[in-house]
Amino acid sequence: MALIVQKFGGTSVGTVDRIREVAKKLIKHQQQGDDLVVVLSAMSGETNRLIGLANELNDKPKGRELDVLLSTGEQVTIALLCMALEQQGVQATSYTGSQVRILTDDSHNKARITEIDDKKIRDDLEKGHIVVVAGFQGCDPQGNITTLGRGGSDTTAVALAAALKADECQIYTDVDGVYTTDPRVVSEARRLDTITYEEMLEMASLGAKVLQIRSVEFARNYNVPLRVLSSFKEGGGTLITAEDPTMEQAVISGIAFNRDEAKLTVLGVPDHPGIATQILGPIAKENIEVDMIIQNTGHDSTTDFTFTVHRNDFQAALDILQKTSVLLGAKSVISDNKIAKVSVVGVGMRSHAGIANTMFETLANEDINISMISTSEIKISVVVDELLLDNAVKSLHKAFKLEHA
Amino acid sequence: MALIVQKFGGTSVGTVDRIREVAKKLIKHQQQGDDLVVVLSAMSGETNRLIGLANELNDKPKGRELDVLLSTGEQVTIALLCMALEQQGVQATSYTGSQVRILTDDSHNKARITEIDDKKIRDDLEKGHIVVVAGFQGCDPQGNITTLGRGGSDTTAVALAAALKADECQIYTDVDGVYTTDPRVVSEARRLDTITYEEMLEMASLGAKVLQIRSVEFARNYNVPLRVLSSFKEGGGTLITAEDPTMEQAVISGIAFNRDEAKLTVLGVPDHPGIATQILGPIAKENIEVDMIIQNTGHDSTTDFTFTVHRNDFQAALDILQKTSVLLGAKSVISDNKIAKVSVVGVGMRSHAGIANTMFETLANEDINISMISTSEIKISVVVDELLLDNAVKSLHKAFKLEHA
Repeated sequence: MALIVQKFGGTSVGTVDRIREVAKKLIKHQQQGDDLVVVLSAMSGETNRLIGLANELNDKPKGRELDVLLSTGEQVTIALLCMALEQQGVQATSYTGSQVRILTDDSHNKARITEIDDKKIRDDLEKGHIVVVAGFQGCDPQGNITTLGRGGSDTTAVALAAALKADECQIYTDVDGVYTTDPRVVSEARRLDTITYEEMLEMASLGAKVLQIRSVEFARNYNVPLRVLSSFKEGGGTLITAEDPTMEQAVISGIAFNRDEAKLTVLGVPDHPGIATQILGPIAKENIEVDMIIQNTGHDSTTDFTFTVHRNDFQAALDILQKTSVLLGAKSVISDNKIAKVSVVGVGMRSHAGIANTMFETLANEDINISMISTSEIKISVVVDELLLDNAVKSLHKAFKLEHA
Repeated sequence: MALIVQKFGGTSVGTVDRIREVAKKLIKHQQQGDDLVVVLSAMSGETNRLIGLANELNDKPKGRELDVLLSTGEQVTIALLCMALEQQGVQATSYTGSQVRILTDDSHNKARITEIDDKKIRDDLEKGHIVVVAGFQGCDPQGNITTLGRGGSDTTAVALAAALKADECQIYTDVDGVYTTDPRVVSEARRLDTITYEEMLEMASLGAKVLQIRSVEFARNYNVPLRVLSSFKEGGGTLITAEDPTMEQAVISGIAFNRDEAKLTVLGVPDHPGIATQILGPIAKENIEVDMIIQNTGHDSTTDFTFTVHRNDFQAALDILQKTSVLLGAKSVISDNKIAKVSVVGVGMRSHAGIANTMFETLANEDINISMISTSEIKISVVVDELLLDNAVKSLHKAFKLEHA
């Protein structure tokens, strides 16, 4: 008998009929002898509806009241799922974040979980109940309702699994697992049976948006086995776990990519200490997130400094950089918002030489020019022309034989 | 500077625009120097929408989960009103029933308030905030969400006013006060400036549905001055208070009536002790509420026993009574579901003789036959043919000169 935490997203509970389907699936699972704790999101569309109401009344609603409003979305689904379970003769109990209680800090709209009291849940499980918890929400030490920010239900599920020392945390979503790359780009893309936390973190941050990145971090920190599954399709999904040194690891797990990048370069900056913060400080101050950062070794006591931002922030970043460039006495600013990033990810990289070379060779054979390179321990990212991205992903997927397990 | 608790019903907060209007009204009021605590219902229609969702999943949802679901309705409006207030530059804080906290017993869907912790509210008022509290809801000692039942927001407002020792509890609704009778029946019906708790209780229970009856009881028990006002129309409304012995009371305050009655009579019942419970016990067991009960002095060691029920319960009550009649060896059962009840209410009745006679004489002059009579200290009720009800109400309103203050 195992203790499983299962999370169902907004699409999975988007209608009364789908809630009924989730109830059936849970009952079938419980009959196999497992204890179940279920975490739910709001019905799809509900959070946006509530934000719409808020914005009609206030163009910048305060975090505290927004959280009071938004937290009702999950409160509705947990009650409805319990009713569906009870209709089918299974005992169930729902808890809001405040009721569990899921204690957070007081950063409204993006709170972090600090503590979970699992007593009520354990008591209910002992009585044979399915326990249904509202995702995405908690309360601060003063009892104010908080929310964890978009996608926070994944984090709730993992945090509960950690607190309950659950055997597995299963995230039901509309995809059936983590793929070697996006199947829309490479039709041979293959679902991975397992992937390590570290690889998943690199994949997620690079645009393979299956799981909220914070929930993966959380799972890694507490060593919670995390499984991604489809709500609508049978199958084992993808298990995300710690690296197992006894297992033969695939060298490369997947090809991630991101089409929303733009790059900015300031040329001929005087090369002295503190130059990076002088360039990026004004960018950070405007809340623009910087992705890749590259600084080449200087020559003639000047250097070239390049970074990438989300394409939506491109114009704002460019305006700032042009001012900074003048202040620093740099030569000029060049930019390109027609770029894309492609990354090869895999923990096997650490013990296998030549991965970078295979990557560069593959792209060269396809006549794809690389304009930036950045590496970490388990990934190599390159920036290419956005028009060549699909071809880059396809050829890399083939070169690393990702279509075969 | 006074402390005022104001309650706005579902129609008053039924749209985003109306919520904005309520905010404006509150700000205007606060600027006059009063401290304000606001109690809100759910947006009109929302509670029914949620019940609809529940019923799609469960034909008899459990009280606990229904309360988790329904309590979201007010949670939405309190957050939205705070946002509207903040948009107009006024500080505001919302509280759910659990947050205040409004402690209740554990009777889900019809919980009773046992205790209110007013500390947070007092702290916020001191800081100049308008405090906005979700009506209709609380939590039991275990932290489970409870609701007070339909119309419970009025009770929340009065209970808060009692706990805070507020100067007045103002119930904003879609009528502008309590009338001498229904203006749709008698066009000369007049809004009362004041009425006593006792009269209001008799009026409410007899069909003048302005306020939830429990909230009036609560107000009387804690001596909270209660005012009924219109959300949409200026005016002083009607103040409901304790009887003031120094004031000259009107003899009669109003004419109440109820069209939804049906009467049942069992004839020739053996007249022995315990007969009333033998007849009404089986009725009560089926949760049918009985209104008037009349037993005439017997003759020939038998008696006739008559009672009235809501018309919806008529057939069920008749079926039960026919069985009981056989068991008791009664002569027969007769019934009539085309009746109506009309009542004259007024505390002045206690010190004025002849009210009953005026009533009977008035009805006789109109050729209206009286089939049942029942009296209490401050009201006289009679049952008449439903077709004659309007005429009865009109003639009584005139006979007691209710069109003039």
